[in-house]
Amino acid sequence: MSDEDCDRVSRVHTLLEQEIIARYFSRHSAGGNVEIGIGDDAAVVSPPDGSKLVMTVDTLNEGVHFRPGCAPEDLGHKALAVNLSDLAAMGATPLWATLSLSLPDIEHAWLEGFSRGLFSLADRYGMKIIGGDLVRGARSISIQATGYLKSACAMTRAHARAGDSIYVSGTLGDAALYLELSRDTEHRTVPKPDLDYLAQRLNRPQPRVEVGQEIVAFASAAIDLSDGLVLDVRRILQGSGVGARIDLEQIPLSDAMQRQRHDAKGWDQVLAGGEDYELVFTASPERSGEIDTVRERTGCPITRIGEITPGDTLELFEAGHRYPLPGRPGFDHFA
Amino acid sequence: MSDEDCDRVSRVHTLLEQEIIARYFSRHSAGGNVEIGIGDDAAVVSPPDGSKLVMTVDTLNEGVHFRPGCAPEDLGHKALAVNLSDLAAMGATPLWATLSLSLPDIEHAWLEGFSRGLFSLADRYGMKIIGGDLVRGARSISIQATGYLKSACAMTRAHARAGDSIYVSGTLGDAALYLELSRDTEHRTVPKPDLDYLAQRLNRPQPRVEVGQEIVAFASAAIDLSDGLVLDVRRILQGSGVGARIDLEQIPLSDAMQRQRHDAKGWDQVLAGGEDYELVFTASPERSGEIDTVRERTGCPITRIGEITPGDTLELFEAGHRYPLPGRPGFDHFA
Repeated sequence: MSDEDCDRVSRVHTLLEQEIIARYFSRHSAGGNVEIGIGDDAAVVSPPDGSKLVMTVDTLNEGVHFRPGCAPEDLGHKALAVNLSDLAAMGATPLWATLSLSLPDIEHAWLEGFSRGLFSLADRYGMKIIGGDLVRGARSISIQATGYLKSACAMTRAHARAGDSIYVSGTLGDAALYLELSRDTEHRTVPKPDLDYLAQRLNRPQPRVEVGQEIVAFASAAIDLSDGLVLDVRRILQGSGVGARIDLEQIPLSDAMQRQRHDAKGWDQVLAGGEDYELVFTASPERSGEIDTVRERTGCPITRIGEITPGDTLELFEAGHRYPLPGRPGFDHFA
Repeated sequence: MSDEDCDRVSRVHTLLEQEIIARYFSRHSAGGNVEIGIGDDAAVVSPPDGSKLVMTVDTLNEGVHFRPGCAPEDLGHKALAVNLSDLAAMGATPLWATLSLSLPDIEHAWLEGFSRGLFSLADRYGMKIIGGDLVRGARSISIQATGYLKSACAMTRAHARAGDSIYVSGTLGDAALYLELSRDTEHRTVPKPDLDYLAQRLNRPQPRVEVGQEIVAFASAAIDLSDGLVLDVRRILQGSGVGARIDLEQIPLSDAMQRQRHDAKGWDQVLAGGEDYELVFTASPERSGEIDTVRERTGCPITRIGEITPGDTLELFEAGHRYPLPGRPGFDHFA
């Protein structure tokens, strides 16, 4: 790009941008606690009286977090879902989101699919997209989400205690197994229903918002599983100054995973695969009755996979024997 | 990038990312109204009681909004400044910001400069950087800023009335003149002090936060000038259903602009250059005493440049004669 080209586009936004925003992103942005939505210099919102707000941001870049050609509806869903997963891990109720969208060019079919995926998930939680920025650049989606706490305190990573049980929502390793299968050069035959199920677990993660809202009342620590069980559990251990023991046989696996994992690399996807977007949390064993209630109210599987220990090490066990920690506990963008 | 490469980095964030965040971005993120800052799944903040919040997001992409090689300290400043300018245009007081930073690789000198520029401006307004995301990708900076209203209402674009005076803060066209001069292939000799002044106007815009906080009490409409006077004033006219007359001789120009603009293209930079990050606002003529007070309290020049008219057209006058609207009122990313 010449300097002249660079300058020509350097001063941003105008009528066409406004038209695109009006066409794809202005749905129901005002009303309720949104006084001014999309279309002015900024949005104006009214937080619930006396509440604490929870704010997070996550960005998905093409070629890094998703492949070129990824379905736009999946991307719209996932870009919001990964943020809702962070809100869920704090026990927050979603309120508003802002979107920054960088696109190399305007494709209406892409925008149509992306906005459908985005709003479909936002609507499920009564969440409003209140503002955004649309700019030219490498394809990138950055969403900042705000929620509020009904509880007095958020769940952090800092208060797990020795003796607490460790729980996980849903099943682990599905997204990583799909990645593994989809790059398998031998194109093993995986039955379509299993492959579709696993693909959906990667492309349409379901943030555990309802679980987070329930467990915030009694969980001692929580985190969302984005980078792999071992890495994310270690963050709780570091934050709380404790250790943990996890029993691999207890880790919940989907039917598709159980059928297909014998072809894959042992426990790698389950322990270090990442992109699960499930919640891991700790709670006193006395709270097991409340766990039953959460299962019942949310319909979400919640499984005890181990316990917090004194000390500062994470130990894995399989059939009563120590199992080695994975050599690569997760991914580092800049390693 | 092969599928394998794409997958290898697709599951994000870990220890090194945490180290970078701790080293460059964790300064003073908790305390005051920030209960939990950088380092957990999300930040937890307490909004001022009974207040309305103002939220905005702006993204700067390399090759689009800034040139490769742009000084990182300038970028840290500018990425926040453009957001503060939007808050100022609503009359809001800055509170918190989240940052999403995409980088092709980790350069410590760049991060050091960037974070210095960012925090220097944040500190000036007592603003906290409460969370963020650091990912690999084309260099891109996206900031979401939240402020609150001390006033009962924000300034929008919707309530300008015929007879209102039109005011502008600071001086216009400096950033665009610098862009024009810096791409001049004849390398005209511009004295260094003028060139430095104009460069600073492009690279270190000063958001008019204090002016916004003062005028919110009486302005009928306001907008920040990011895309050029003609385009941004038209947004007020469209929002309010009115017209306007602007007298070009009244538009405030910096000394450097007055000395150097005879070399440039007439009024183009002033009317359609963009990147001024000044405020344009409207107010009843009866408020002229309050305008004097704002000038005095903020030390910021505020100049009457025209008035709102019935109808729906924008008319420019020079020495009492109609002056044509610029052919290109501003820039469209996707035209």
